[in-house]
Amino acid sequence: MSAPDPGPGISWPRLRARLDALAEIGDTGDGGCARLALTDADREGRDLVVTWMRDLGMRVDIDEVGNVVGTWPAASDEPPVLMGSHIDTVATGGKYDGTFGVLAGLEVVEAIVTARIETGRPIAVAVFTDEEGSRFAPDMLGSLVYVGGLPLEGALTTVGVDGAVLGAELQRIGYAGPAPCPARPPHAFVELHIEQGPVLDAAGVEIGVVTGVQGISWTEFTFTGQSNHAGTTPMAMRRDAGYAAAALSVAARELATAAGPPMVATVGRVTLAPNLVNVVAREAVVTVDLRHTDDAVLTVAEQELHARARAIADAEGVTLETRSLARFEPVAFHPGVVELVEQAAVARGRSTKRMPSGAGHDAQMLARVCPSGMVFVPSAGGISHNPAEHTDDAQLAAGAEVLLDVVLALAGTAPEDDREEMGQ
Amino acid sequence: MSAPDPGPGISWPRLRARLDALAEIGDTGDGGCARLALTDADREGRDLVVTWMRDLGMRVDIDEVGNVVGTWPAASDEPPVLMGSHIDTVATGGKYDGTFGVLAGLEVVEAIVTARIETGRPIAVAVFTDEEGSRFAPDMLGSLVYVGGLPLEGALTTVGVDGAVLGAELQRIGYAGPAPCPARPPHAFVELHIEQGPVLDAAGVEIGVVTGVQGISWTEFTFTGQSNHAGTTPMAMRRDAGYAAAALSVAARELATAAGPPMVATVGRVTLAPNLVNVVAREAVVTVDLRHTDDAVLTVAEQELHARARAIADAEGVTLETRSLARFEPVAFHPGVVELVEQAAVARGRSTKRMPSGAGHDAQMLARVCPSGMVFVPSAGGISHNPAEHTDDAQLAAGAEVLLDVVLALAGTAPEDDREEMGQ
Repeated sequence: MSAPDPGPGISWPRLRARLDALAEIGDTGDGGCARLALTDADREGRDLVVTWMRDLGMRVDIDEVGNVVGTWPAASDEPPVLMGSHIDTVATGGKYDGTFGVLAGLEVVEAIVTARIETGRPIAVAVFTDEEGSRFAPDMLGSLVYVGGLPLEGALTTVGVDGAVLGAELQRIGYAGPAPCPARPPHAFVELHIEQGPVLDAAGVEIGVVTGVQGISWTEFTFTGQSNHAGTTPMAMRRDAGYAAAALSVAARELATAAGPPMVATVGRVTLAPNLVNVVAREAVVTVDLRHTDDAVLTVAEQELHARARAIADAEGVTLETRSLARFEPVAFHPGVVELVEQAAVARGRSTKRMPSGAGHDAQMLARVCPSGMVFVPSAGGISHNPAEHTDDAQLAAGAEVLLDVVLALAGTAPEDDREEMGQ
Repeated sequence: MSAPDPGPGISWPRLRARLDALAEIGDTGDGGCARLALTDADREGRDLVVTWMRDLGMRVDIDEVGNVVGTWPAASDEPPVLMGSHIDTVATGGKYDGTFGVLAGLEVVEAIVTARIETGRPIAVAVFTDEEGSRFAPDMLGSLVYVGGLPLEGALTTVGVDGAVLGAELQRIGYAGPAPCPARPPHAFVELHIEQGPVLDAAGVEIGVVTGVQGISWTEFTFTGQSNHAGTTPMAMRRDAGYAAAALSVAARELATAAGPPMVATVGRVTLAPNLVNVVAREAVVTVDLRHTDDAVLTVAEQELHARARAIADAEGVTLETRSLARFEPVAFHPGVVELVEQAAVARGRSTKRMPSGAGHDAQMLARVCPSGMVFVPSAGGISHNPAEHTDDAQLAAGAEVLLDVVLALAGTAPEDDREEMGQ
């Protein structure tokens, strides 16, 4: 008589070991990682993940934009329950952003394989190309092409900040694959990710149940006035582009504060010309990053911001030009997947909080083609895109357990279509 | 019987020709000039002015910091009535800033020489070294050393923005002279200069009777907060250094507007880090240039500005460090010289306006050691430090005539001490 099947379980030491091994590639020596998309470091990271996938008996497909998808069982051809994220980093990245979702996905597969569970649907783990957008714009490029949101040709001819061409770099590192992209939609997609914000950490909550992704509006405002001597030009005769930029920054803050959460407004970039102590600025270029979960509210806020900028420009006698740098509508995750994430966390005894994601993630692209959702674990101090990025081991492990349970629920134990159950 | 002496008179064509000839040296091709201090272009300009001085029969003295003083009559040893200014320019300078005061001084000498006037005191024209401070800080360096305000050694060891050492550059261009510096004070000093501000042009006034130079306070404020993700960080949890800088800019404007003229406040330089669209700024360095003619008022304004910065930092939860970059007390010109300038302009039928100088000038240094004053002519549109710097010929000629009359009044027609008359 054999021992009873212990059921699948996350091995934290195994997941930790993979996190540490991948973090060695592009290690910046200060706790951080630099694996910009399609660089040699990215290739090394990909090679390691592919090796792990094959060691687990997964089939590895590489598509035309370099997205890597490992599928288990290897022979399966049904749309899988897909996990994953990305392993590229910003130039001064941490160990967990993206990589945690990929490696926790591998751990879920290993847990299921080890426990000899036969799932109703195949399960798969994706490594999406160039999520960060630090080398090749836009961000989330790989998942965007995956869902048909950006033509493949446009992606392959993208020129990076270093002058490299994306398609040529894919060839160079050996990740220009044969699998067609856009791809056939998976059955569902779940992405586990660090929050990259301070909300869970500050509230002492273990699992973020992500309801969607905030809409994003980036606008560049250029004020042009007159360069003047700081000593000889009376206040009343100035056309000070720098003052207009400052007034707009303050207006953006007022607007966000008046609207209340989840509205956020950020003026992160300001460039004055000539930028000298004793010269009234001739030109000021200032960006406003505005986000909200409700597209109608976001649109009204954009209009209000433009009206404020116009009024400031008119009062100061400077000209105003505006340019939209980016505009993404808010994404609502599938209610059934959101519900599953919450149930799984509660069943594990975890504290939870429903929340939107303030950052963009591959899951928002996948949400265009299949039921999708995300699980957040806390980021200590909200710090991310930084070598100091940190999440406690116990919190990471708790997130992986929730991912396992959600994937098992989505994949089922017999061939059936549970999209119906999720009320899609 | 000879014809009656016509009396001295300015020859506008002669002055215009010298202005044009000097403007060819360092000609930037767009109407402007680039003669940074102690460069080859500066040497060429100096050589030309020295040639003109010698052609007029003046004695040329070059001092240890490179100031050039031409004296007429050549043999005289009494403290002269000194005119002059500078011929160095900023990198994108115009034709008139500084050069006009020097070349109008030469024209005054030529007018007096031509009319065979024998003045009671010698007259002289100075070309001060490095007034702009664009290559070697501080500005007005040559006149500052001339009056003993900066030790010669300190000046000679000054390292320029291009790494060059001032003393070595003086040697290289042949202007490390033997005349002792600090120098013996002149009898009086009068500097004719373009306004470099919009006041006279806007008011349609021909001659600015300069009463003094505004006090200048430059302070650098560094706010340090926390770099955070623009999407994931709720407004209430931010420590946004960029916002603090913007709020301080707005506060500086409010402060100057509330105080009224002649208070001016300028935030010309703002540097955010990391200066990215979607990252809350960790650090913001912002400069405030504050000026007023009354030192007590300026001091109160500085204190108010520091208090506002502190309150902004506290409210935002960012740290604040301040650093004084420059602090000059206001300078009041000699009432007797101011009166002479006004009388001369009125006698010539010119419209006048008493006004402080918003910019720094060599005359403020000379005011430490002798009765000093300035004459302003309008700057079209207030534009200066710019190739578009312009003053109409008639306005320039009117300024030179006032300078002539003031110099004649100060020098007298017999050896006498008219300091007494000016009530010093």
